[in-house]
Amino acid sequence: MAKPEEFAAILAGGGGTRLWPASRRGRPKQLLSLGASESLLAATFRRLSAIVGVGRTLIVTAADQAEAIRQALPVLPADNLVVEPAPRNTAPAVGLAVAHVVRRAGQDAVLAVVPSDAFIGNEPQYAAVLRVALAQASQAIVTVGIKPLRPETGYGYLQTGAKVPGSTEVCHVVRFVEKPDLETARAYLASGEYLWNSGMFFFSAGRFLAQARQHLPELSALLDQICASPDPAALTQESYPRVPAISIDYGIMEKAQGMRVVPGDFGWSDVGSWAAVGEIRPPDVDGNVISGDAIVKASKGSVVMAEPGAPLLGVVGVEGMVVVATRDAVLVVPKHRAQEVRRVVDELSAQGRKKLL
Amino acid sequence: MAKPEEFAAILAGGGGTRLWPASRRGRPKQLLSLGASESLLAATFRRLSAIVGVGRTLIVTAADQAEAIRQALPVLPADNLVVEPAPRNTAPAVGLAVAHVVRRAGQDAVLAVVPSDAFIGNEPQYAAVLRVALAQASQAIVTVGIKPLRPETGYGYLQTGAKVPGSTEVCHVVRFVEKPDLETARAYLASGEYLWNSGMFFFSAGRFLAQARQHLPELSALLDQICASPDPAALTQESYPRVPAISIDYGIMEKAQGMRVVPGDFGWSDVGSWAAVGEIRPPDVDGNVISGDAIVKASKGSVVMAEPGAPLLGVVGVEGMVVVATRDAVLVVPKHRAQEVRRVVDELSAQGRKKLL
Repeated sequence: MAKPEEFAAILAGGGGTRLWPASRRGRPKQLLSLGASESLLAATFRRLSAIVGVGRTLIVTAADQAEAIRQALPVLPADNLVVEPAPRNTAPAVGLAVAHVVRRAGQDAVLAVVPSDAFIGNEPQYAAVLRVALAQASQAIVTVGIKPLRPETGYGYLQTGAKVPGSTEVCHVVRFVEKPDLETARAYLASGEYLWNSGMFFFSAGRFLAQARQHLPELSALLDQICASPDPAALTQESYPRVPAISIDYGIMEKAQGMRVVPGDFGWSDVGSWAAVGEIRPPDVDGNVISGDAIVKASKGSVVMAEPGAPLLGVVGVEGMVVVATRDAVLVVPKHRAQEVRRVVDELSAQGRKKLL
Repeated sequence: MAKPEEFAAILAGGGGTRLWPASRRGRPKQLLSLGASESLLAATFRRLSAIVGVGRTLIVTAADQAEAIRQALPVLPADNLVVEPAPRNTAPAVGLAVAHVVRRAGQDAVLAVVPSDAFIGNEPQYAAVLRVALAQASQAIVTVGIKPLRPETGYGYLQTGAKVPGSTEVCHVVRFVEKPDLETARAYLASGEYLWNSGMFFFSAGRFLAQARQHLPELSALLDQICASPDPAALTQESYPRVPAISIDYGIMEKAQGMRVVPGDFGWSDVGSWAAVGEIRPPDVDGNVISGDAIVKASKGSVVMAEPGAPLLGVVGVEGMVVVATRDAVLVVPKHRAQEVRRVVDELSAQGRKKLL
């Protein structure tokens, strides 16, 4: 059998306020560079297109983010931007990418579906793991599970089972589990059986459609129509907003049988808070991660970021602090409370200050 | 003997970077309001003019600050702004005010000389102390000494001697002393004999001129000329820049004999750092002093100030922290290290970033 054609679909529709004030409704996390020379999205696109080719790397996004993505990724072929007419969560979004692939390359083509906003520290290792996952994708739904580094309560996990015959690394998936409490997370870590759910999935287009037929009949019906339609864009525009909103995890992955997982250990981070930003950028000798126009003195283990156009940041004598400035807002929070940025965002929301959200 | 005419001279020539980023070369500390409805200078002017009258309240300032002061104090009579053609420190600056008073009211008139940038918490008590000092000013050089609250190493002290006969509170001054080390400051506090040097002085114009004749002959010669000149402005412009620069403390007060001191206890602060700002403004229930556009959550004992035009400040989970934002700069420093703002200012200076200084 010939090697199936390989595609990647980068899911870039998310919002998220965990990196406020840098992230906003109109400028989601994946468009931030966070002190690096490229945005998280651009890095994801670069990594995936190196594996499957630029022409087969798709981006799925929401209508209100399409323009920002075009501007951020001028190298993206226009046809490869798959736009949801309305946000219906990830299962329908992936469905649109699958329909696109079926129309271009048939049901045997395989897809890597990946979030747009993760950080990867070891790119060669990442590429190697993804090649293994893609090679398995004709035979099963495959995911990549991240070897856990700590009893993290902010991530979902998956339990691994026996090795897949003939492979030294690919395992069967026993089950997916939700974000655990700390005690459970510690038990997962100690067992050695659990991996973090990376949100990356690999499958043939046909297998996704079969799963949708079984678990998400309304989405399945729409996708079949789109695959066969002479005007798929109009049909999508008209009918997509009416399919039930559901995540690919709930809608398909937690129900699918025979899933496989490739364990990965490549410096993965979902960059879920400013504290995480401090872990993905190389620190200076004092453990500080500093970018932009900032003067930092007598400080340790802190994240200090000033965006272009932000006021100068003068920081003296702090430890483990996050200080982030944009043109119109500044955040100061200790690293270990970085998740509580939500409290500021909630207050701004309550005050109706949309410009700052 | 008739009561002598009373004047006040507010010294407003200082610069100072201890309240950076709010204070700048072009906007010195006395022009800041620091979360209140009036600037430190405006408050000083209000307090002094209530005692001696607006018409007899002078402001002595540097040429490059004159316009800012006129704008900040529109109520100030134009003639009452005494402008140094060049900065020569406080002894010559006070000399200019003395010459102004001599020309208007003769050598028997008395002056209260006060810094423009101190905070006063108990204004009725302050006014009472100043009236006592002014009443003594015909008979001696008088100062106000602040009852020390802690073994402060950032202030000069003065040692008090015996009570002046006939007064229950006015004492003779034994000596002025420089900023002490901590051990010495503790001994001063324990002795009960030492007061903080407030920088306020009260004397008759004639007595100042006599002291200048004795200790500062070049200044004395110029002041005599100014007092007698048909064109004092031109003479000042021409000759003032050539008198030796020296402070009134070194040049006169530490050498003068027979000085008296009125002890004062009226919530005085020289507002020498952002930590001090946290002490002069009423805190909220969490001990925070917050002003401007700021959202502060789960924080204690902190100073959070956003000037008009500054970015929104979002502060979460900090304790004892100073966060100050202007349009173009932000400072983050723990209160107990607030003096170290100098490190940022020095770095900006080294980088030649004059706009931010």
